[in-house]
Amino acid sequence: MYQLRARDHGLTVGELPTGPRNKLTDVPGVTVGHCTVDTPEHKTGVTVVLPGPENPFVHKLPAAAFVLNGFGKTVGLVQVEELGTLETPIALTNTLNVGLVHDAMVEYMLTRCEAEGVPLASVNPVVCECNDAGLNHIQRRAVGAEQVFSALAAASPDFDEGDVGAGTGMVCHGLKGGVGSASRILEMDGRQYTLGALVLANHGRLCDLTIGGTKVGAAIEAAKAAKASDVGSCIVLLATDLPLDSRQLGRVARRASVGLARLGSFIGQGSGEVFLAFSTANSFDPREKAATRTVTAFHENKLDLPFRAAAECTEEAVLNCLFTAHTVTGWSGKTVYALPDLWRPGT
Amino acid sequence: MYQLRARDHGLTVGELPTGPRNKLTDVPGVTVGHCTVDTPEHKTGVTVVLPGPENPFVHKLPAAAFVLNGFGKTVGLVQVEELGTLETPIALTNTLNVGLVHDAMVEYMLTRCEAEGVPLASVNPVVCECNDAGLNHIQRRAVGAEQVFSALAAASPDFDEGDVGAGTGMVCHGLKGGVGSASRILEMDGRQYTLGALVLANHGRLCDLTIGGTKVGAAIEAAKAAKASDVGSCIVLLATDLPLDSRQLGRVARRASVGLARLGSFIGQGSGEVFLAFSTANSFDPREKAATRTVTAFHENKLDLPFRAAAECTEEAVLNCLFTAHTVTGWSGKTVYALPDLWRPGT
Amino acid sequence: MYQLRARDHGLTVGELPTGPRNKLTDVPGVTVGHCTVDTPEHKTGVTVVLPGPENPFVHKLPAAAFVLNGFGKTVGLVQVEELGTLETPIALTNTLNVGLVHDAMVEYMLTRCEAEGVPLASVNPVVCECNDAGLNHIQRRAVGAEQVFSALAAASPDFDEGDVGAGTGMVCHGLKGGVGSASRILEMDGRQYTLGALVLANHGRLCDLTIGGTKVGAAIEAAKAAKASDVGSCIVLLATDLPLDSRQLGRVARRASVGLARLGSFIGQGSGEVFLAFSTANSFDPREKAATRTVTAFHENKLDLPFRAAAECTEEAVLNCLFTAHTVTGWSGKTVYALPDLWRPGT
Amino acid sequence: MYQLRARDHGLTVGELPTGPRNKLTDVPGVTVGHCTVDTPEHKTGVTVVLPGPENPFVHKLPAAAFVLNGFGKTVGLVQVEELGTLETPIALTNTLNVGLVHDAMVEYMLTRCEAEGVPLASVNPVVCECNDAGLNHIQRRAVGAEQVFSALAAASPDFDEGDVGAGTGMVCHGLKGGVGSASRILEMDGRQYTLGALVLANHGRLCDLTIGGTKVGAAIEAAKAAKASDVGSCIVLLATDLPLDSRQLGRVARRASVGLARLGSFIGQGSGEVFLAFSTANSFDPREKAATRTVTAFHENKLDLPFRAAAECTEEAVLNCLFTAHTVTGWSGKTVYALPDLWRPGT
Repeated sequence: MYQLRARDHGLTVGELPTGPRNKLTDVPGVTVGHCTVDTPEHKTGVTVVLPGPENPFVHKLPAAAFVLNGFGKTVGLVQVEELGTLETPIALTNTLNVGLVHDAMVEYMLTRCEAEGVPLASVNPVVCECNDAGLNHIQRRAVGAEQVFSALAAASPDFDEGDVGAGTGMVCHGLKGGVGSASRILEMDGRQYTLGALVLANHGRLCDLTIGGTKVGAAIEAAKAAKASDVGSCIVLLATDLPLDSRQLGRVARRASVGLARLGSFIGQGSGEVFLAFSTANSFDPREKAATRTVTAFHENKLDLPFRAAAECTEEAVLNCLFTAHTVTGWSGKTVYALPDLWRPGT
Repeated sequence: MYQLRARDHGLTVGELPTGPRNKLTDVPGVTVGHCTVDTPEHKTGVTVVLPGPENPFVHKLPAAAFVLNGFGKTVGLVQVEELGTLETPIALTNTLNVGLVHDAMVEYMLTRCEAEGVPLASVNPVVCECNDAGLNHIQRRAVGAEQVFSALAAASPDFDEGDVGAGTGMVCHGLKGGVGSASRILEMDGRQYTLGALVLANHGRLCDLTIGGTKVGAAIEAAKAAKASDVGSCIVLLATDLPLDSRQLGRVARRASVGLARLGSFIGQGSGEVFLAFSTANSFDPREKAATRTVTAFHENKLDLPFRAAAECTEEAVLNCLFTAHTVTGWSGKTVYALPDLWRPGT
Repeated sequence: MYQLRARDHGLTVGELPTGPRNKLTDVPGVTVGHCTVDTPEHKTGVTVVLPGPENPFVHKLPAAAFVLNGFGKTVGLVQVEELGTLETPIALTNTLNVGLVHDAMVEYMLTRCEAEGVPLASVNPVVCECNDAGLNHIQRRAVGAEQVFSALAAASPDFDEGDVGAGTGMVCHGLKGGVGSASRILEMDGRQYTLGALVLANHGRLCDLTIGGTKVGAAIEAAKAAKASDVGSCIVLLATDLPLDSRQLGRVARRASVGLARLGSFIGQGSGEVFLAFSTANSFDPREKAATRTVTAFHENKLDLPFRAAAECTEEAVLNCLFTAHTVTGWSGKTVYALPDLWRPGT
Repeated sequence: MYQLRARDHGLTVGELPTGPRNKLTDVPGVTVGHCTVDTPEHKTGVTVVLPGPENPFVHKLPAAAFVLNGFGKTVGLVQVEELGTLETPIALTNTLNVGLVHDAMVEYMLTRCEAEGVPLASVNPVVCECNDAGLNHIQRRAVGAEQVFSALAAASPDFDEGDVGAGTGMVCHGLKGGVGSASRILEMDGRQYTLGALVLANHGRLCDLTIGGTKVGAAIEAAKAAKASDVGSCIVLLATDLPLDSRQLGRVARRASVGLARLGSFIGQGSGEVFLAFSTANSFDPREKAATRTVTAFHENKLDLPFRAAAECTEEAVLNCLFTAHTVTGWSGKTVYALPDLWRPGT
């Protein structure tokens, strides 16, 4: 079912053109899958991002992370920072499920590598998380191997946003948060490249929410007389087919913060902001024999365009998450309202 | 002469109360001095921040830096990061004058320490810079020991903003930039603390400039039909009397980025964003004999207030810089307009 | 049963005096527990380090990590680096078991906090790993909640070294590696402090092994005509009751590398060297109401002693691991010899 | 005049073959120049490393630094870390001369770029330092533009070691230190590459000095009844023609620590250990128009050889410095003995 997004409400962000889906999956090869756990006790789930159709363990992709606020439990960054590569799909889930999802990703990689005849005795899954304890009985850790495999099987260029997958129980600026996405087309030397973002948005105070320069959150809060505290986190995944190396991807990842700040976040102390960027260009097969190979490098001085795209995509992805999510009531009886149920642009 | 600042134009930023001066120097003990070099050939200068009346070499203060974009030549961060302390005043100047200003700061510390009977054979001046080559004949390096000593002698709780000192030749969002400042009062356990910011603003594109949510820059650019490219940098200095340790100050420094993003910056590739925070509490005298001493620690979970203050102060400091600067014509004939000459709030 | 250690063979390291056990647990309050999985298919296990008798979630301890080589899958460092605190016991295990051990640590913390009436919806377990695939059927992930709980229950100031717990299947410098430990006493201002190390040693080439300046490994390799490749990793945990803050503990952790280098390691590309240090002083209870509290700070210029101790302890801990381990044959039929079966000092 | 080096005394380090000079300048294109200031008042100077014959500002080379201990005043690392490139020669000097040498390097780059018609309004000189205050009247800052230009003019593939240039007043392990160098040849895919090191060695305690596994320093100290304290620093520059990118060069730089540890250093608190590596391959000309270009990448899993070479070269470079230096008496009357005047291998 089509979901009304920010642009359907007449809101645009920035100046760069969007990709055809205006989602992370506009980057060729990238797919996203969800598994939602929606029961009386649980509002949670898992979302996976597959960087391409090939086995990422033998088509390692340039990657880098930037941790703006490390109050979080993301797994896998030690190796990404050292080696500059991503070697598994990325999984997003709730905070206390990181261990089980990590184990499921190991199982997935073992199974996949065995099927392809690739020996595997060591692998570095990247699992990011936000805390959905407000709506979800998080202590019960409802996301296991079954859910992870289901999300992986569901991965597709088309995917839902809002309160789905890992976003099912998330809260953003006091409103129903979750998964959102956006993309931008970058033209360089007559060729089109794409940069996309997928956010798991679980951060921010309601009274700080600013949309298109208007302090929407303060108005809603005044009307509702409900003060939402600032807890939670925000994960931003960025993908591109620009031939950026790990260092450059780290620079791109830093710009995700711009999008969050423009919507009103001041990057609260309890909010773990973790940004990860990867490129689908220049994959590295460790089975190669030769000591050297030829790759494509990107001109450092041309990075303004991808930087701007990262900022724009992040801001629009959070907005898309807020507009597509539904009002949800959690297991403890707490209700978190969706933005469209409280406010619409132009009102 | 009184300078009209953002609040004089009816603009406020954020929700926290300002200090009496609404400047960095609201933090007790902190003083700021300028020396301006304004000649036909030069629009440049030096600005110094003294963290307190004591000799900082034997009253080392907790400090930390955060480099959001390292396309810059700031000096002294290696040691600040390792030891977590500031041991000299901080100097701001133009890019190519970093060496001479560094040497002048060494000279100042040698002189001061000799006068106080403190042996000095090693010292770590912190010198930050932005590039004023658009208005200043930067290759001639007009700032030397005389200018640095003059700025140090002029240091006071009262100081000017705008195109003064290190800000004389700076350009921000295509408009005349320079030095700006702001402060916030934080109440905790019935006690008042202060956090202040001083920026050297030389960053941003005109068309991105956003004030109070309104895309002011795009309107100005359309009216003027002049497209300003995004070059330059932004230095943000943050001071507080909250008893934060170096790690916590690093967390505070990271929030400066929020203020820049809200004004429209996407942290361009050529823009060196360097943020440095210090506390005037818990100074450390290396001449102490005992292996341990008692200090005051700050509750990690109470950091939201200083984080918010850092974001608000940075945004307002840049605005104050834009409102107080004057239109300047540089040695090559290029004119950079002051914001108030092109736009005023409510128009 | 008493295990013969390096000093029992007449080898000493450095100049500082050891603690009574010459183990990590000489630091008051610290305990260590193992659970060994030793079956035809598995040579693996888990080792846990408890920083003290209190619940670490509400007695958070200053901590810091240093990643010398990030080719590893250690979990939990993002938050340790940001907040500078440890809030769970530390678990060591094999590479592919990180997820299950992480989940077991979450379960342990939930159970413990529930029993103590401490609400817990978010927790950051630290799980470190080395790869024991040479001797262990690692893909089967033999370490689960049962093993983790068993290790936690077994935690004691007395603990074994060598091929035990997480060390069961490890290989160090081509010889049987595993767990080793050592400690040093530091006298300051008439008071005694302790610094201890525990290593999970799985790194190094045989031909590089150097003991007390003698290239022991090259001689063994020549005699055995068996060339061992350099794979694996090394985890070093350091504990102290010195009142060091997180930044200072990070400086201490960096010195672990010295101990490894002196034994011949050049920190191979495939070897994940992760060092983590914590202090048992100045614990932080997040339930405190006041914004500030008084803590003890350590004089920066007195760090030479703990730095030296970190280097000495790491070197001796690896030696103790090599001397206490036994010759082990793995599930695939590969035998890894214990050092004492091939060489003894003085021979 | 030929200087007797470690190998002339029968000492070898490691297993890899050396280059023809066994110096940094075995890397094709790299040259080194000294200017020594040797007066009654001064024992100091400057040493420059030119990465190649081209103007480095328009042939930017991949580079990275690793700061093992940041108690130092090295300048230029902020930009090297962000952009991953070196754009000037590297200068080494004494601690308090960093500013003047920085300014001289700016002057050099302005002059050179003007002569070549390259516009220059911003440049990032890298200036590293150690503290020679024990032998040199450091407060007088004897190294200025004249000395820097003289060193640059003297740059050659052949250069002296020991108490020369920036090494004139340095003290290493209580003995006369200074400049040392070494190189290794790496064979890959039938092609020969070179990796070389140049150290400015000013670190370590005498009693810790260990040569070839023998605690030489303790014996010398006992004989001399003179205890040398551990002050000073160590700069290690690494160059290679292997096509390593900035991230990989950072990994290489980390291995310099191994060489220092093997000689007995425990990386003292007051010792600033700064390592910088660059590659002469894949230079980047910012004037290029195209957004992408083709470069050669190096296989991550083949890094063991350059890692080993970095460790070996650093160790041997420090030894070469110790063996080539002469006994020096400083302006305050203090004498620092050269190693060969106190001890020779085999004695």
